Amino acid sequence: MSLLVVGSIAFDSVKTPYGEVTDALGGSAVYFAYAASFFTPVRIVGVVGEDFPEEYLADLGRRNVDTTGVRRTPGRTFRWKGLYQGAMNEAETLEVQLNVLGEFDGTLPDAFVDSDYVFLANGPPAMQHAVVDQVKHAKLIVADTMNHWIRDTRDELETLLARVDGVVMNEGEVRQYTGEENLPRAGRKLLEEGPRFVVVKKGEHGALLVTGDEFFAVPAFPTADVSDPTGAGDSFAGGMMGHLARVDDASTTELKRALLYATVVASINVEGFSLDRFKSITPDDVERRYEQFRNMLSF
Amino acid sequence: MSLLVVGSIAFDSVKTPYGEVTDALGGSAVYFAYAASFFTPVRIVGVVGEDFPEEYLADLGRRNVDTTGVRRTPGRTFRWKGLYQGAMNEAETLEVQLNVLGEFDGTLPDAFVDSDYVFLANGPPAMQHAVVDQVKHAKLIVADTMNHWIRDTRDELETLLARVDGVVMNEGEVRQYTGEENLPRAGRKLLEEGPRFVVVKKGEHGALLVTGDEFFAVPAFPTADVSDPTGAGDSFAGGMMGHLARVDDASTTELKRALLYATVVASINVEGFSLDRFKSITPDDVERRYEQFRNMLSF
Repeated sequence: MSLLVVGSIAFDSVKTPYGEVTDALGGSAVYFAYAASFFTPVRIVGVVGEDFPEEYLADLGRRNVDTTGVRRTPGRTFRWKGLYQGAMNEAETLEVQLNVLGEFDGTLPDAFVDSDYVFLANGPPAMQHAVVDQVKHAKLIVADTMNHWIRDTRDELETLLARVDGVVMNEGEVRQYTGEENLPRAGRKLLEEGPRFVVVKKGEHGALLVTGDEFFAVPAFPTADVSDPTGAGDSFAGGMMGHLARVDDASTTELKRALLYATVVASINVEGFSLDRFKSITPDDVERRYEQFRNMLSF
Repeated sequence: MSLLVVGSIAFDSVKTPYGEVTDALGGSAVYFAYAASFFTPVRIVGVVGEDFPEEYLADLGRRNVDTTGVRRTPGRTFRWKGLYQGAMNEAETLEVQLNVLGEFDGTLPDAFVDSDYVFLANGPPAMQHAVVDQVKHAKLIVADTMNHWIRDTRDELETLLARVDGVVMNEGEVRQYTGEENLPRAGRKLLEEGPRFVVVKKGEHGALLVTGDEFFAVPAFPTADVSDPTGAGDSFAGGMMGHLARVDDASTTELKRALLYATVVASINVEGFSLDRFKSITPDDVERRYEQFRNMLSF
């Protein structure tokens, strides 16, 4: 089934205790697309500036990512600069240059409006709404968001939640949105807003799935080699949506498996900077770690 | 198999967002004994003051907890006063009155030196060593500890780790002891000190089991009704050791099951203050929640 992601394409400058990179390829849509491409073809929609190398798009194309929805605009590509310290659970944002991302309105190429599985990566809720307006026949729409949208555009986010099937948020955002410390309770509060399921990302503590009548939790895959957590959340979402689109089934059973795949893919991504690890592995490597993870969790 | 716990018996005064209690029954050995008593008979060793009600010991006795190792000493019982706020992940200690606990040296009644399964609850490492000296035929010795022992009595703790089969520590203590932020890596560092397995307690994020060749993780049971986290860690240890002693098997397979039982028992305990919830349930209630948890974790 066709899988669409709408989000940012970025140059990231990141420093962690294990190294640093400057102006490396990144962005929510890019991490998502690379992660999902291990499972199924992906359609990516975003905006880049004149400084964005054609080669980066060509590489996505070679991975079965359709980049016809990437618009090139006069100006510079979105830039983010961040720092991870200690347990690296949260990035400290040092600098944001919105650049061409500021003009991005979420308009899809005609060929993408029939997308079946749709992921709205973090972005202005108004833009996320605009995407939902276009994908009339979507089977599953899942949205991510971020602390400042919850703070500044609460109303638009509330109406968005009523229009999506699932949300993927980190634990801090879930607590912020619901005003509820207890995560199972917070998850249920979010369900009342409309989505059929809520996935709570907890970084090194794994992830939770909350549905109307089920609760499921996966730990993080115990990788001892975390180099750079940038893109972990979007890689997680890419693994999750990639699996769901591949099996064309978003039942609770497949959602659980999707959380395992999401965890596995995110765990691989954080072992290197930027997209380095994704570029060096194959779908077989993903399946191998999935089997390892399954065995690890069986009792 | 016989199960021994050596630790504190206390009066706790606790305030959480959901209520408060004053001078309520508590202490590591007490929480452990109540939790383990759902699985197997328990031997408890500790010290109380003249102010400790005989009725509390009688109640333990009715639960198949052998209290002949509880020494009554002139003076007042150990008292702890704590506050939980927000997500209630950590207690803020407001007051500690050591009282008679200061004279506790870990001497066991003769009848207890043949104990098979032994849990050394948090306490001075010198006292924990003294217990290990006495239980010559133990099949499994597991120790807990705490931040100030790691800071102040590091050497004694290191020699203790070389004498035990397993440790149960919370994530902050594991990081403090090893100087390692990454928990899988920290767990492996602890194994190098001697124990065969390490259990890392992560509160609302569940627990990890690290052995020489396996890694296992359980989430917390998603109870929406956390009233008072006091004793959660010791209840967890009680559920774990209770199951291991009951099946007389500390293989990795049974350790995994023990972590599920530990989680279930701890999740019940935190739904009330002091020992209130443990006093109102039966072993059947524990088994029922265990089955629910098993189903929840299957995929």
